[in-house]
Amino acid sequence: MELLRQTLEKIDQLDEGVMKKSRARVDNLIKPKGSLGKLEEIVVRLSGITGELFPKVDNKAVIIMAGDHGVYEEGVAPDPQILTAVQTCNFPKGITGVCALAKQAKADVITVDVGVAVDLEEPRVINRKIKYGTNNMAKGPAMTRDDAIKALEVGIEIAAEEIKKGRNILTTGEMGIGNTTPSAAIVSVLGGYDPHEIAGRGAGLPVERLVHKANVIKRAIDINKPDMKDGIDILSKVGGFEIGAMVGVMLAGAANRVPVVVDGFIATAAALLSCTMEPKVKEYLFASHSSMEKGAAKASELLGLEPMLNMDMRLGEGTGAVLAFNIIESAVYMNNEMITFEEAGIIRD
Amino acid sequence: MELLRQTLEKIDQLDEGVMKKSRARVDNLIKPKGSLGKLEEIVVRLSGITGELFPKVDNKAVIIMAGDHGVYEEGVAPDPQILTAVQTCNFPKGITGVCALAKQAKADVITVDVGVAVDLEEPRVINRKIKYGTNNMAKGPAMTRDDAIKALEVGIEIAAEEIKKGRNILTTGEMGIGNTTPSAAIVSVLGGYDPHEIAGRGAGLPVERLVHKANVIKRAIDINKPDMKDGIDILSKVGGFEIGAMVGVMLAGAANRVPVVVDGFIATAAALLSCTMEPKVKEYLFASHSSMEKGAAKASELLGLEPMLNMDMRLGEGTGAVLAFNIIESAVYMNNEMITFEEAGIIRD
Repeated sequence: MELLRQTLEKIDQLDEGVMKKSRARVDNLIKPKGSLGKLEEIVVRLSGITGELFPKVDNKAVIIMAGDHGVYEEGVAPDPQILTAVQTCNFPKGITGVCALAKQAKADVITVDVGVAVDLEEPRVINRKIKYGTNNMAKGPAMTRDDAIKALEVGIEIAAEEIKKGRNILTTGEMGIGNTTPSAAIVSVLGGYDPHEIAGRGAGLPVERLVHKANVIKRAIDINKPDMKDGIDILSKVGGFEIGAMVGVMLAGAANRVPVVVDGFIATAAALLSCTMEPKVKEYLFASHSSMEKGAAKASELLGLEPMLNMDMRLGEGTGAVLAFNIIESAVYMNNEMITFEEAGIIRD
Repeated sequence: MELLRQTLEKIDQLDEGVMKKSRARVDNLIKPKGSLGKLEEIVVRLSGITGELFPKVDNKAVIIMAGDHGVYEEGVAPDPQILTAVQTCNFPKGITGVCALAKQAKADVITVDVGVAVDLEEPRVINRKIKYGTNNMAKGPAMTRDDAIKALEVGIEIAAEEIKKGRNILTTGEMGIGNTTPSAAIVSVLGGYDPHEIAGRGAGLPVERLVHKANVIKRAIDINKPDMKDGIDILSKVGGFEIGAMVGVMLAGAANRVPVVVDGFIATAAALLSCTMEPKVKEYLFASHSSMEKGAAKASELLGLEPMLNMDMRLGEGTGAVLAFNIIESAVYMNNEMITFEEAGIIRD
């Protein structure tokens, strides 16, 4: 609790002074004002985050949090639960989707077991297991409040270690069979939505099981009555260990003035939780892609950040966020390589 | 004419056999089927284009075509016409928007003068000038049919030279003060739109001048009566030298089985023209971003290719396409680095 409290206290506003200077420079680069759209907004915000007129994003990491879900037993996911363990061990081998894209983006992949249901035999997965999976949220709280705080603090610690190593941009990935179910529960609670509006097919649930999935989420919310003003309460009652750890990474990013890219639906649910704990976190987050998951558009809207990419993706793992690393890096190149009208000797009216 | 005729004749269909094999492999990579969305479609299409199961896109070039427009004298653009010449000479210096983004994407920038209104004193700009700017299309044809064919053949030749050097992915950029006006004319003719639905603010035309710009386009179409079935006729009557050369690059890409990324509004107008000359060209094109220019969404719809990026950009120069190079490269990494379920030893139902 102490680490969480300190982290939340450390989160400050963006540096308005540097942002003003950055805006003035970006407006004067040799192009029609505003014509590089979101690239310009990215640079100005990176300046506010880092306090630098020429921010860098050349030391990138994807932190993948893995955990299992008790609610799996309700039949909300099409895949065998053991895939969480199998795929978690595949990340250090570099053969999964996010690893392929991370290699292109020159980002390192860090994998953490926060709550996988079995012991993992892959020593390159960092073992920070809190429990062997959450409890079934359709029957009671997914975890205790203490364990929710532990999950947040695992994320904070892992992110802080990476930042200490020099990372200047982070994102979170996840692996957890069934984890679109707690994510949809979180978005439903925070947005006041009926779960039937939010529950989607995840990794490929047959359409005819969607009503069942939404009913399970509805039951979990009805039984647990999470307090929509208390992110820790929501996380403990209808969340997941990996989701809590993702929230922790976002909090640590904000506390240490390092930008964090938000992947798709599950990461957006985590981002929403992080903002309930400290609204200023939002200024440190960048939305990456519009996920195909049913509730994703509503979740992004609720977060208030417009994604950059429209790729019809729904894999998770952090794949969309890693694609967006390229775009954010391009914004930095714009800032570093372009010259201003004055520098070019062009006089404008 | 002979080069154009040969190029059009050489354009063949995608390799369906390799595409089928590629699709089978992509469907079996360790992820839910279809969950990497457009990345999967990109790889399958690259396979069809190149005939390779593992296509490469590691030798990238942006070919920037520059030209001036007689219709500028109607007051359709906010900037001084001399900016075409100034900015064209800035490309080899590496200080413009597209250069900054090309540096990030590890793409080379090639700049060609196809019809700038003045002589350029920058030897690194390839001089293929056809005329010192087009004629004012609001008073008669922008150029002769012969000059339209010359513009197409300049693009074909430059692209073919680059492909001979080993380029495996191309895009076109452009520089030409006033060139959203002929582009809007082309889109209006090909889509049967009223120019008032298509004409946009370009580099920053004041809103109150938009009706005037649309009226000028309407007049150009009424006077010249371009034949919507004849792309060369449209290009000569309401096009531009740089637009014709961009079309040529797209035709040469298709003829030589090299993918061409389509930038924003002006490039989409060129892409539409290329498809009137040979509809199979479309299969070799990838749309990059949704430009903020007013007619861009309708133009993309008409072309039938959905952009990947949503960046609120409207600079041109090829900036959106160069950003998309990263995404297409990521698709190739997905294909090269991920393994299949069989290779991972995971048995699925």
